[in-house]
Amino acid sequence: MESKSEQNEWSSGVWAHLTDVRRRSPLVQCITNFVSMDLVANTLLSAGASPAMVHSVVEIPDFTPHIHALCINVGTLTPEWLPSMKAAAEVASQLGKPWVLDPAAVSCSGFRLKSCLELIGLKPTVIKGNGSEIIALSSASPGQTKGADSSHESTDAIEAAKSLALSSGAVVAVSGAVDIVTDGNQVIGVHNGTKMMQKITATGCSLAGLIAAFLAIDSSRPLEATVSAMSVFGIAGELGEAMANGPASLRMHLIDSLYGLDETSVRSRVNITRFG
Amino acid sequence: MESKSEQNEWSSGVWAHLTDVRRRSPLVQCITNFVSMDLVANTLLSAGASPAMVHSVVEIPDFTPHIHALCINVGTLTPEWLPSMKAAAEVASQLGKPWVLDPAAVSCSGFRLKSCLELIGLKPTVIKGNGSEIIALSSASPGQTKGADSSHESTDAIEAAKSLALSSGAVVAVSGAVDIVTDGNQVIGVHNGTKMMQKITATGCSLAGLIAAFLAIDSSRPLEATVSAMSVFGIAGELGEAMANGPASLRMHLIDSLYGLDETSVRSRVNITRFG
Amino acid sequence: MESKSEQNEWSSGVWAHLTDVRRRSPLVQCITNFVSMDLVANTLLSAGASPAMVHSVVEIPDFTPHIHALCINVGTLTPEWLPSMKAAAEVASQLGKPWVLDPAAVSCSGFRLKSCLELIGLKPTVIKGNGSEIIALSSASPGQTKGADSSHESTDAIEAAKSLALSSGAVVAVSGAVDIVTDGNQVIGVHNGTKMMQKITATGCSLAGLIAAFLAIDSSRPLEATVSAMSVFGIAGELGEAMANGPASLRMHLIDSLYGLDETSVRSRVNITRFG
Repeated sequence: MESKSEQNEWSSGVWAHLTDVRRRSPLVQCITNFVSMDLVANTLLSAGASPAMVHSVVEIPDFTPHIHALCINVGTLTPEWLPSMKAAAEVASQLGKPWVLDPAAVSCSGFRLKSCLELIGLKPTVIKGNGSEIIALSSASPGQTKGADSSHESTDAIEAAKSLALSSGAVVAVSGAVDIVTDGNQVIGVHNGTKMMQKITATGCSLAGLIAAFLAIDSSRPLEATVSAMSVFGIAGELGEAMANGPASLRMHLIDSLYGLDETSVRSRVNITRFG
Repeated sequence: MESKSEQNEWSSGVWAHLTDVRRRSPLVQCITNFVSMDLVANTLLSAGASPAMVHSVVEIPDFTPHIHALCINVGTLTPEWLPSMKAAAEVASQLGKPWVLDPAAVSCSGFRLKSCLELIGLKPTVIKGNGSEIIALSSASPGQTKGADSSHESTDAIEAAKSLALSSGAVVAVSGAVDIVTDGNQVIGVHNGTKMMQKITATGCSLAGLIAAFLAIDSSRPLEATVSAMSVFGIAGELGEAMANGPASLRMHLIDSLYGLDETSVRSRVNITRFG
Repeated sequence: MESKSEQNEWSSGVWAHLTDVRRRSPLVQCITNFVSMDLVANTLLSAGASPAMVHSVVEIPDFTPHIHALCINVGTLTPEWLPSMKAAAEVASQLGKPWVLDPAAVSCSGFRLKSCLELIGLKPTVIKGNGSEIIALSSASPGQTKGADSSHESTDAIEAAKSLALSSGAVVAVSGAVDIVTDGNQVIGVHNGTKMMQKITATGCSLAGLIAAFLAIDSSRPLEATVSAMSVFGIAGELGEAMANGPASLRMHLIDSLYGLDETSVRSRVNITRFG
């Protein structure tokens, strides 16, 4: 069980991060899939950040140097989009800007897996996926033992996440009933959120965008920034679900709640534990 | 007038289909237009199915063999997207997986009409369109008499649908004030739904995706599965409209209603008649 | 201060324009960015217009001659999309159909600025942007003095808008706390709308689509049609905000309000002033 003072520390950190995002309104470039563009942009706006859905490879050299963080999501990847993703990731890495990789449905094709591994080679600050995606990436990464089909249990996901974090140098975030965030050494569990959020398309992509916004205002502490973003998004979902009658009204109330989130709600609801 | 026992039979079938979709959560690949991706995915999720918006031609060979059904919609067709659609349709047809063609705005260009005819040659299980689209496809299909400009009356649409069903081998579904479903011999009318649904973009595309999900769990009876999907979507719209103040709140309540649809609502609202 | 009779005249004009859009349901082709397609289409539907999101260059020759107005938005521009935009703009200009250019985020790259200037050379009826976009375009247009970095104050935007209107021949609309519309001589201020609308992605794009619909039914008076569209959209936002708890519910209520807007609400809320 977590000590009360440790929970207070997490709560203060989450609220400080959210306040900073609202105050500084970081510019977050998103190269995301077609399905999620609307919700990712609205999530960032409601959190106080400034989204920019700029994805053309010809615009990267002019635009990406001015951003504060980058989010790349491969949900509707095609070979035509990969060069933009790589170019933006390279600029971000070279200029020390934090960036998030969301390896959405990485296992759906050999092309997608290979592309994600190439992107991981460009040093994302955070890799955010669900258990299956992180396990797939971890077992395909160089220097990993490729075991039999994973059972995808939580413990498998934790080990895979730690392993991927160590091999990639990224913080790895695993969304699930309990979200897991690890830098390979520390393992933090975020217990906020609700099950029905999975019934809304693009909530995972939106969370990746939100993580990028939080990284933008605390890039030297990617583990803590990621934990804060996941907690904030989960709390907005909890508040939203209390008003919702189904996934579509939850989607609306989630965004409204994120926009209106106050210190009392954050402090009373943050639920973060240290696993290792 | 329909006998009470026949209505009961339809009601039982609709509810059994919906229950099966929820229980088996079929994986439905959607290659749909940009406008509709969000609503199609959310419709499938709220119905209990598992949407996959995978459209790159390089991913088809790896991914499409694992799906349970496919939905192709040409609403924002470009020459670059056609090869993906054809490749996915070919895999689906070869592996006996059901697939739906939504010839959205087929008459807007010669390119789109030609593309739809080529896709019909790849043997869709169901073709779903509005009256104008079905009439345009029917009169352009091989072996059809090309008459003067159609007046697009309901009776024209029924004859066009029967003719297109016979020439293509597909079940043809015509959305309208009364939805029509035919295999060329039987003609079924679905009287569920509300007029305001037409004021929400992508409801037609979402219905096509839903039909694919229902085909996935009863592929040997495409006529009945299509009728069930159209009735379920219409009932969700009726329940939604009772709570709505306009198209945007209807969109929300429609998805929420689809998610929460219970047996009593389905049984009391199914309104299906046999026309021929 | 505006005379009461002048306000009455504006109110009558706004209501007459909206009534006409609903009655004639103009077909508006939109070549817009991926983020906004859903909201632009739903905005047009709720206003009574008929949206067509047709963007393939191969479809322009068949389709564009049949439209009533065109809206081009460069929000997710790539080199692949530019030829379609130019082809559609050329057809529209040649056939005397009104069209709107939304130079979204024009300053984000040299490519985007150059593309917008080329599109302006194809004679848009209306250019609609925010203050920064209009100032950037104005100072980059032929024959303009390129000053130091603009402070982007309202007065700068008015001068830039007048200058751009005169050099381009277009009516220029500047969205902001007060919307400005000018043909280079007259300057009209539209005081409707709410600040929270900026927290919803694609509201600016949707306004551009709505302007196109209003131009379609009064193409000989682009200044007045643009003013009416901006006032109607702003009023729908005001009515929506009275019911909203945040940006996502505002988005819903905005569209519902636009759909249900009645003469009393329009007449009591229109707030338009003549600046010059």
